Amino acid sequence: MSTQAPHLTATQERSLRDIFPGDSLLLTPEQTLVFATDAGRRMGTPLAVVRPTTEAQVVELLRLAQTERLPVYARGRASNQVGACVPDRPGIVVSLLHMNRILDIADDDFVAEVEPGVVTSDLQRAVEARGLFYPPDPASIEISTIGGNVATCAGGMRALKYGVTREYVLGLTAVLPGGKVLRTGGRCHKNVVGLDLTRLFVGSEGTLGIVTRITLKLLPLPQATATLLAGFDSMEAAMHGVRRIFRAGILPVALEFLSPEVLDCVARRQTPPWPDSVRGALLIRLDGSRESLPLEVRRMHDALHTAGDAADGTPGNEPPVWSAHGVGHDEEEPLWAMRRGISPSSYLVRPNKIGEDIAVPRGRLLDALTGIRAIAQAHDLPILTYGHVGDGNIHVNIMYDGADPSETTRADAATVEVMRLVRSMDGTLSGEHGVGMAKKEFLHLQLSPLETELMRQVKHAFDPLGIMNPDKAY
Amino acid sequence: MSTQAPHLTATQERSLRDIFPGDSLLLTPEQTLVFATDAGRRMGTPLAVVRPTTEAQVVELLRLAQTERLPVYARGRASNQVGACVPDRPGIVVSLLHMNRILDIADDDFVAEVEPGVVTSDLQRAVEARGLFYPPDPASIEISTIGGNVATCAGGMRALKYGVTREYVLGLTAVLPGGKVLRTGGRCHKNVVGLDLTRLFVGSEGTLGIVTRITLKLLPLPQATATLLAGFDSMEAAMHGVRRIFRAGILPVALEFLSPEVLDCVARRQTPPWPDSVRGALLIRLDGSRESLPLEVRRMHDALHTAGDAADGTPGNEPPVWSAHGVGHDEEEPLWAMRRGISPSSYLVRPNKIGEDIAVPRGRLLDALTGIRAIAQAHDLPILTYGHVGDGNIHVNIMYDGADPSETTRADAATVEVMRLVRSMDGTLSGEHGVGMAKKEFLHLQLSPLETELMRQVKHAFDPLGIMNPDKAY
Repeated sequence: MSTQAPHLTATQERSLRDIFPGDSLLLTPEQTLVFATDAGRRMGTPLAVVRPTTEAQVVELLRLAQTERLPVYARGRASNQVGACVPDRPGIVVSLLHMNRILDIADDDFVAEVEPGVVTSDLQRAVEARGLFYPPDPASIEISTIGGNVATCAGGMRALKYGVTREYVLGLTAVLPGGKVLRTGGRCHKNVVGLDLTRLFVGSEGTLGIVTRITLKLLPLPQATATLLAGFDSMEAAMHGVRRIFRAGILPVALEFLSPEVLDCVARRQTPPWPDSVRGALLIRLDGSRESLPLEVRRMHDALHTAGDAADGTPGNEPPVWSAHGVGHDEEEPLWAMRRGISPSSYLVRPNKIGEDIAVPRGRLLDALTGIRAIAQAHDLPILTYGHVGDGNIHVNIMYDGADPSETTRADAATVEVMRLVRSMDGTLSGEHGVGMAKKEFLHLQLSPLETELMRQVKHAFDPLGIMNPDKAY
Repeated sequence: MSTQAPHLTATQERSLRDIFPGDSLLLTPEQTLVFATDAGRRMGTPLAVVRPTTEAQVVELLRLAQTERLPVYARGRASNQVGACVPDRPGIVVSLLHMNRILDIADDDFVAEVEPGVVTSDLQRAVEARGLFYPPDPASIEISTIGGNVATCAGGMRALKYGVTREYVLGLTAVLPGGKVLRTGGRCHKNVVGLDLTRLFVGSEGTLGIVTRITLKLLPLPQATATLLAGFDSMEAAMHGVRRIFRAGILPVALEFLSPEVLDCVARRQTPPWPDSVRGALLIRLDGSRESLPLEVRRMHDALHTAGDAADGTPGNEPPVWSAHGVGHDEEEPLWAMRRGISPSSYLVRPNKIGEDIAVPRGRLLDALTGIRAIAQAHDLPILTYGHVGDGNIHVNIMYDGADPSETTRADAATVEVMRLVRSMDGTLSGEHGVGMAKKEFLHLQLSPLETELMRQVKHAFDPLGIMNPDKAY
């Protein structure tokens, strides 16, 4: 490569200008800089940023990009943590934020048709106003887009009862390199005709094509919700609480765990409602009809508070030492505000964070949490663990001071050990965030050479020249 | 091709004998005949039938088949309706019924590991005995296998609330042509690392490889179930009943429709509990905790029986003219026995049947049923419609007398019209059965040339020589 900074040729630039008039094409570094990164803060090199408003523009773009062998990076709000939409090779960034129309909400079909740039919470509010329900709720819900959620198969707290984004994508339109338009699936809730190309796109991290339209399944909106916060005297007791809930035959909407370190962290910003004896907590959401929900709350309370059955040989199966609950939005909100406070308050511990989102088989949760605690002690770093334990999905925040070279080195070393620990338990490197750039170095721990080779060959069917988000994800 | 009947070479036969000793290799026509067909009664040509008990045997087989370019047809119980496992080109049939071990039921992981030949209901009983729940329940549940369910992405009555087989497959092992062993996914309930090869296998109808091990997600077993049968004075009123239920915010476990023709059919074999005024019915299952279920039954009853809201402009939104309900297995069983009686009693109408399983967007159900009725009248043939209307999935049984050439011709013509009608509503040719051989002639109505080309290229990544269930599905 020459020493000159990478740039578009004059002809390429003119071609882009023909497709993207006015400020739908950004070229200067001042304009494109913000599109060079994502929430994970890795930086790439946008040769240009284009902001299509129509499928036809995306078709023209991918025709040009294919001819010119230009890498293409689609993005929504870039709330991604792993660099999945960062243009690490110089290329064209495609912002889909101007394709943000909710095209249809069909009450009788229980279907929504949307463009990829629709913000997830905007869609949720729109369908809820009509008594409908779109369950996936990644933590980034107020900023992230449906297109981004599809690219990463976003999960969220409600995934325990309602499943992840994959379960809600019934069909989609995607433009492929060269400009071919692929329409898969449709508005039917069940469809088993041919290979499942629709779900192949879900979680593909922008490596197959650019999704321009998405058909989503909706559910009837549950009438009511309730939240319980149960405090235990140890992490172990909280994990036994998880077992109590499932053994009682209850499948909560959400089941979140907060480690002692996280409780301490939250307590730095607000006076916590729980007594000092609480050293581990579960935050639980239930839903149902107005009539039955109070019974379900009582049932959950009983499941948690009844003394453990010694007959099953579970050691330390103690009930919570404290609990609180709220029925309905106003009563529930303070409990969830506390949960949302974890991420901001984590920076009171250290200014920098490596945020992982591993998952393990549900029965290995306590082993994983114990192992991660040992890694924290060995490296003398705070590691905050919390998240969707109902799914076995734990957010692991390795906190460090980036200005301290020793802490930085130790944080990197701890990350490697967490990954190895997780894989030793048949866990996964990512339950929600995806691979992007960040986890490629660990992929060999999880994917066999045969799997990655098959993934690359499948990609080749869609993207023979390898221009779609190259070198990412697999 | 020579006029000689297709057969294995002596060398091929010897190689198979080396891998499959004793009666795990069947060669004579008397032995192989039963493996030549499926529940759809199409006939193929097995050159040999092999019955592996180990993955190692499957590896050896697919090494040999690749070298010798021999087509390979995997099958379980062959309850498939569309010829998906019929060896329509002469080839090796692989019966997986001897790989039928439940390898693990992990209470804390909420996971089961099974071989493909496990009968679905056997797995369900085994997990339910431990307070766990495997929801997919295709009608063939007492005979069909998990491997077959994975190959077809089997649905069933409970799919409305709990989703289809795809939602429960967390990982699998598949042997590919040439003998490579692919292991995908794992025991984690969430996993977003790389392209989703696991779900690509679900519904792939044996065209990519032979699945030898499957990891399934389990749920906590609901404590109690209840069933309601609601009878309406017309098909239209029954369809309005479907809308009432969803508008009340209720997502039942199952929501089955029975057309007037089906009710008449059932009445030929048993004295029906409903009065003569009933000309359309909904059979509804609910589940939940012992405490809340009675409230949910009352809520469903209220949603159905409260007079329709004229404000929404729905014409004919009348409540049921009759209903009955039962709580718990013993009270529910007579209602479901009636549902199971549909298929046997249909043969009292005519000796032959073309059974389709189309789906339409949920809001087009009444249009689809009305259109199918018009097709029945135009061709002067009984067409029975019933099934999973909650999903928009309708079983369409076109009844005819195969000994009557005119009826046979009209039945074929009616089938084509049903398919065209469904596609005019953005429906799908198959909600559950798959494509196999039977629906290939209609595929062009649904899949674009680009889609089928991509599916073939994806297949090529797994099966470059095209030996896995060739010419099927897409």
